[in-house]
Amino acid sequence: MSKAAIIGGGVIGGGWAARFLLNGWDVAVCDPDPEAGRKIGEVLANARRSLPALYDRALPAEGKLSFHTDLAEAVKGAKWVQESVPETLELKHRVLPAIQAAVGPDAIIGSSTSGFKPSELNAAGTRAIVAHPFNPVYLLPLVELVGDPDTCAQAAEILRGIGMFPLHVRKEIDAHIADRLLEAVWREALWLVKDGVATTEEIDESIRMAFGIRWAQMGLFETYRIAGGEAGMKHFMAQFGPALSWPWTKLMDVPEFNDALVDLIASQSDAQSGHLSIRELERLRDDNVVGMIRALRRSGSGAGGVVRAHEGGLVQGGEHEGLPITVARQVPTTWTDYNGHMNETHYLEAASIATDRFMEMIGADAAYVASGKSYFTVENHVRYLDEVHAGERLTVTTQVLAAEGKKMQLFHRLWREDDRLAATVETLLLHTDLTTRRTSLPEPQVTAALTGWAARHAAMPADGAGRFVGQRVPAPETV
Amino acid sequence: MSKAAIIGGGVIGGGWAARFLLNGWDVAVCDPDPEAGRKIGEVLANARRSLPALYDRALPAEGKLSFHTDLAEAVKGAKWVQESVPETLELKHRVLPAIQAAVGPDAIIGSSTSGFKPSELNAAGTRAIVAHPFNPVYLLPLVELVGDPDTCAQAAEILRGIGMFPLHVRKEIDAHIADRLLEAVWREALWLVKDGVATTEEIDESIRMAFGIRWAQMGLFETYRIAGGEAGMKHFMAQFGPALSWPWTKLMDVPEFNDALVDLIASQSDAQSGHLSIRELERLRDDNVVGMIRALRRSGSGAGGVVRAHEGGLVQGGEHEGLPITVARQVPTTWTDYNGHMNETHYLEAASIATDRFMEMIGADAAYVASGKSYFTVENHVRYLDEVHAGERLTVTTQVLAAEGKKMQLFHRLWREDDRLAATVETLLLHTDLTTRRTSLPEPQVTAALTGWAARHAAMPADGAGRFVGQRVPAPETV
Repeated sequence: MSKAAIIGGGVIGGGWAARFLLNGWDVAVCDPDPEAGRKIGEVLANARRSLPALYDRALPAEGKLSFHTDLAEAVKGAKWVQESVPETLELKHRVLPAIQAAVGPDAIIGSSTSGFKPSELNAAGTRAIVAHPFNPVYLLPLVELVGDPDTCAQAAEILRGIGMFPLHVRKEIDAHIADRLLEAVWREALWLVKDGVATTEEIDESIRMAFGIRWAQMGLFETYRIAGGEAGMKHFMAQFGPALSWPWTKLMDVPEFNDALVDLIASQSDAQSGHLSIRELERLRDDNVVGMIRALRRSGSGAGGVVRAHEGGLVQGGEHEGLPITVARQVPTTWTDYNGHMNETHYLEAASIATDRFMEMIGADAAYVASGKSYFTVENHVRYLDEVHAGERLTVTTQVLAAEGKKMQLFHRLWREDDRLAATVETLLLHTDLTTRRTSLPEPQVTAALTGWAARHAAMPADGAGRFVGQRVPAPETV
Repeated sequence: MSKAAIIGGGVIGGGWAARFLLNGWDVAVCDPDPEAGRKIGEVLANARRSLPALYDRALPAEGKLSFHTDLAEAVKGAKWVQESVPETLELKHRVLPAIQAAVGPDAIIGSSTSGFKPSELNAAGTRAIVAHPFNPVYLLPLVELVGDPDTCAQAAEILRGIGMFPLHVRKEIDAHIADRLLEAVWREALWLVKDGVATTEEIDESIRMAFGIRWAQMGLFETYRIAGGEAGMKHFMAQFGPALSWPWTKLMDVPEFNDALVDLIASQSDAQSGHLSIRELERLRDDNVVGMIRALRRSGSGAGGVVRAHEGGLVQGGEHEGLPITVARQVPTTWTDYNGHMNETHYLEAASIATDRFMEMIGADAAYVASGKSYFTVENHVRYLDEVHAGERLTVTTQVLAAEGKKMQLFHRLWREDDRLAATVETLLLHTDLTTRRTSLPEPQVTAALTGWAARHAAMPADGAGRFVGQRVPAPETV
């Protein structure tokens, strides 16, 4: 079992501890603060609920966590020592030599410094490298590595092993790379607030509703490459480069905009993204943006909240073959899989949305759920009859097969855009008390609405319902 | 039917056209370029595959699209006219008066300008407002509105109707808000490239692997509020504010860092985010970040690619009750629903991942699929036996019920962390030729591996398989 020592147990140190621990390393935390255990515990609780959620496989069993006030004891036998003490050079000049005196010669000594250069950190003859992470350290992959190239290469290998993305910064420079960009935004944002142009909230909205989403998946230059359109990066530079000489920011020292700079940027951009055409980049960007905004629908944050609010006003309803339409929607690319069609899971997802919609129609809506009552699904039987593709319009109708007491049995039909039947989903639900988590009778108005639907649907056919798996398999059409 | 006129059919004009059209507006595009139809068509194709994918309901039927070279004809009867011609004041001063002369007095005239102020645009007495969108206009919600407050309020109402997020910029200023921030980053990035510190690709990685993901969901100030930890925004300012006087960016004009500025920022931040504790903000951020990174797994972009690569190295396997473990994972919060437990869809998703894993185990892996052969699911029967909660470890075992020719019938059992059976999923698959989309026989080595498993599993029980929906419903335990 490998061991990491974390010197300084604040938000960043705690994030490092969680990253190593959840990837199976033993972790020794050194911090004189008697509250260190509680603070690290809170970071760990956050990490345990989120880091493993990124993966479709289990992470290794957690390593052992220990707390120390004696630095030499903490770092003993450590393969990685990470210094995350407060950002003063004087303090780092006390801590780094103490670490180096107590660890073996092969241990990596990383500093979380966001601003200092290795030459400054190591003024007293230590051999630390900068390993600068980003909060929350247990989720964000970036670590900027600065310092001795061989040590950085070894460090990169270890960081990849705990799921991080090491970026070797080849020239040492104040604040490395990312924080220089952050610092530029921070200053401009402070100007905007100070001058009364915008509030902190308005500035945050201007970021997360627009370029924040772009940057989460492509960054600055690849995004601008697309903006240049078919004419490419040189065109973009020609169009927007001259703005450098306009007084758009409060910050005046600008690089000279000449052919050499344009050529340098364009050739680096070609090396970075030239394997994809602008159209391919656009589709990649759009699929990523759609996926991320769909992910934000859940909390309603930023663009996800905008979509939810807009969707609430979209008209739905109608009938098909005498049955109510409970879903009408486009199939997102994110619903398709390696077989080039809608994945089996999302047939059920569409049916699940149809069930929710039907529940609303009988009065078992969000307010009803908030009052402590709901329906829980106990069985689903999905028959896949035809393939469905991204971009197709999918329609679901819902028929009530049975409604007795706690029981509600529905039969969803999924229709393709060309009106072929794509699937049937037979679903059995039981009314449940959300407090006791036991079955219970619905409120009378829900029962009345449900039995009304059941009576209207009773005489209608329901081919394919009531069958077990493999019973009379439909012959050629399969998904 | 409302009508919008789009003056200038480039990337931005095309994005506006798509946004209005897919929200049911008629759209008239005016552009002298004979290629305008093709260019708009390409933007529309992108928009049609992505914008509707954000929603779980259908958007309204598309409006009518027409192309014009005569401006007066294009804007006739329009409720909204959007000018997106190239960014020169001289050109805007020709186009805006021509628009105003041809539209009704109630029509909104918006300009997509990224830099000019309304007072500059309207120097000739026009009444345009700035309505500055972000590329891709059909996906990103932000529109900065600058100009007459009443007109901006009417405009905001219309923009919300087409799913956008209007931000009223109360003070006119060069480049509004977002582009001032973008410009600051752009300049600093050009310095980094010019000075040979980093390439365009390294800069993009430093953004998308770290703060890009943060900014997609919270922006700058709310993110820093969290970084301040329990001590809050004032603590953050005290800690990082002094960096303003350090030479970290090439850009030197900095606001004075005094108590008044700290108080202003802290009070605005309280108004923005004070309804949530730092712990609540952290969990919100983490859930959003997890959701977005999981969305990026699909394409492998940025942090999604890092997770996929890391996951590939995670050991999986083992046995439970004599059956192979095909899934062992944590249940992400994103898999839960309004009933406070894992949603019915994700029981099937876990089983679907188990099927994929079992396919790999018999040699029907990614390379096999790439060779044009795969298994398609024709039926699934899910029995929900117990609730599963976020953060729980979920384990799936897989038993072969039948394997004959094209047919593979599996029985997945989903186990909770406390070793109670959460669900069974009976799944029937048929081997399929991916070119003809018809069933076919598997390759001999796959058949051999599959029948080997089938023989070992034949004598084992499979309680709950072979049943139709509602047959002997398990009594108290329901989901």
